Amino acid sequence: MQFLRLGPMGQEIPVALWQGQYFDLRAVTADIDGAFWSAQGAERVAQALQRGELPQVHDAQALRVGAPVARPQALLCIGLNYAAHAAESGMPAPQQPVLFFKHPNTLAGPNDAVAVPRGATRIDWEVELAVVIGQRASYLPSVAAARAHIAGYCVANDLSERMFQLERSGSQWGKGKSLPGFCPLGPMLVTSDEISPDGLRIRSWVNGEPRQDSSTRDMIFNVDQIVHDLSQYLVLEPGDVILTGTPEGVAMSGRFPYLQAGDVVELEIEGLGRQRQQLM
Amino acid sequence: MQFLRLGPMGQEIPVALWQGQYFDLRAVTADIDGAFWSAQGAERVAQALQRGELPQVHDAQALRVGAPVARPQALLCIGLNYAAHAAESGMPAPQQPVLFFKHPNTLAGPNDAVAVPRGATRIDWEVELAVVIGQRASYLPSVAAARAHIAGYCVANDLSERMFQLERSGSQWGKGKSLPGFCPLGPMLVTSDEISPDGLRIRSWVNGEPRQDSSTRDMIFNVDQIVHDLSQYLVLEPGDVILTGTPEGVAMSGRFPYLQAGDVVELEIEGLGRQRQQLM
Repeated sequence: MQFLRLGPMGQEIPVALWQGQYFDLRAVTADIDGAFWSAQGAERVAQALQRGELPQVHDAQALRVGAPVARPQALLCIGLNYAAHAAESGMPAPQQPVLFFKHPNTLAGPNDAVAVPRGATRIDWEVELAVVIGQRASYLPSVAAARAHIAGYCVANDLSERMFQLERSGSQWGKGKSLPGFCPLGPMLVTSDEISPDGLRIRSWVNGEPRQDSSTRDMIFNVDQIVHDLSQYLVLEPGDVILTGTPEGVAMSGRFPYLQAGDVVELEIEGLGRQRQQLM
Repeated sequence: MQFLRLGPMGQEIPVALWQGQYFDLRAVTADIDGAFWSAQGAERVAQALQRGELPQVHDAQALRVGAPVARPQALLCIGLNYAAHAAESGMPAPQQPVLFFKHPNTLAGPNDAVAVPRGATRIDWEVELAVVIGQRASYLPSVAAARAHIAGYCVANDLSERMFQLERSGSQWGKGKSLPGFCPLGPMLVTSDEISPDGLRIRSWVNGEPRQDSSTRDMIFNVDQIVHDLSQYLVLEPGDVILTGTPEGVAMSGRFPYLQAGDVVELEIEGLGRQRQQLM
C-alpha cells in the first residue's frame, strides 16, 4: 500500500494509491498521523478498499502533493551514516548512530519551493531514506524486532544550512537543520510489507547534474539497527519520522557549489519516488 | 494567571489557579496546548472567570500534577547558558545560543517518579527556566519584540544521562536527553504578564542538600534574546517549550555524585513553584 496526502498546504486529505488508482481515505481516518498507525490504519484501509467502500480521487494528478505524514511528535535524524559522507564532511565514521533532531514544522511537500532563508549562504541537499514508526518502540529486545514497529518508508531531503549548523550553535547542529521548509518528505509512504529498505539506489541531482548516487546498503547502521538502537535511549512514537543519513556527494564536500535561488534539486530513492524542489 | 493540568497521567484536565481557587477550564478548552494559546486562550479564561462561568475543582490538592503544557510540537533546549556551568562542564562559554532538542514525549509531571533507565550510570539534574511560546515567532525584528510571543514560564528539570549524552552519539547530545520521563515540567505555568523572567532565584537540592543556587540574571543569553535568536533560524510554534539552560552545581562538575535509585531531587524557581522527583 502507498499513502499520500494531497491538497493545498495545511488542507491535505489522506489518500491511498492502490492498483493504480487514488482513493480518498477520509471515511477511515482524518489524516495519516500517529493515531492512524496506532489504530491499525493500514489494515483498516485495506479492508475498506477490498469492500469497495472508498471513493476515488479522480483529480489526484492535479493536486499538490504534501508530506505523506502529518504532525509527527518528533523528527529524528541520524548523522554521518554513510562512511564516504562522513569522510567528505571531515568527521570520523561514528561508532554508534549519531542522533539529532529537526523541528517537525520543517516538513514540506516533496515538490514545494524552498525559500532561501535570510542570511543563508551554504544551503546543502541531503537525500535520505525516511522511516515512519508504526508502533511504539521502547527497549526493543533485538535488531530483528525492529521491523514490526515500522509503518513504512519515504524519500526525504534533510536540507541544511552549513554555516548555521556548524558556526552558530556550538557543537550542536540544531540551528542549521530546522529552517522553514527544510524537510521535504514524500511523495508517498510505501508500507514496510511492500518494500525492503536495504539495497535501494538513492540519488540526487542539482540543475539536472548528478550529485549523490549510492545504495542504502552502504549505511553504516541499517534501518533495523537504527530503530533498535534509538529504542534503547528514548521511546519512538507512532508517526515519528527518522531520517537515516545521507550518502556522499553534498556541497559541504567542496566538490560542488552550495544551492542558491533558482537552483532545482531532485532526489529519488528506488521504489519510493522522486522529489523536485526549486529554491526561491 | 496560573495554568495547571491535574489528574492521572494522560487524563489531565486543564485548570486555572485564580484568586487562590482552582477552576476547571474544560468549558473553554480541551487542553493547555498550542491551539489554546493560538486562540487567545488565556484571555478567554480570564473573561469566563470574571463572569463566574467556570466550576471550581474542589479536590485539586488531592490530584496528581501533570506537566502544565500538552503536546508541544517541539521541546527546544539551550545549552551552556550560564558561564559557571559551561566552565564546570569543561566547555567554552558560547558566543551564540546553543540549540538542541529533547523528544517531547519526555514531558512528565513535576513530582512524578523518575525510572532509572537501563544502563544509566550518570544521571544528572538540571534546573531550568522553561519558556512556553504563545504566538508564532519567525524572524522577530528585535529582542524587544520577543516578549509578546511568550505565553508564560515554568520550572523544568532537563534530566540528562551524561554517558549517553557524551559517548553514545558522536558530538550530538540527543541520546542523553530524551530518556523516558526526563523532562519534569511544572507545577504551574505562570503567564508572562504576571512575572518577569529576569532575576529569579533558581535552585536545586538532592536528598535535601543544596546543589544549584543562582539567578536567571546570570544567563549568558536572556529569555528575550533566546526567543529572538531562535526565530532567526526556525519558526517557534504556539505551545513550543524552550528550556533556557542550567546554572552551575550539577554532578558532571565532579563535585557531587550522580543520581541513583532512591535519591530525591528538588527544584525551585522563585515565583514558579517547586518540583520533587524520586528516582526509582
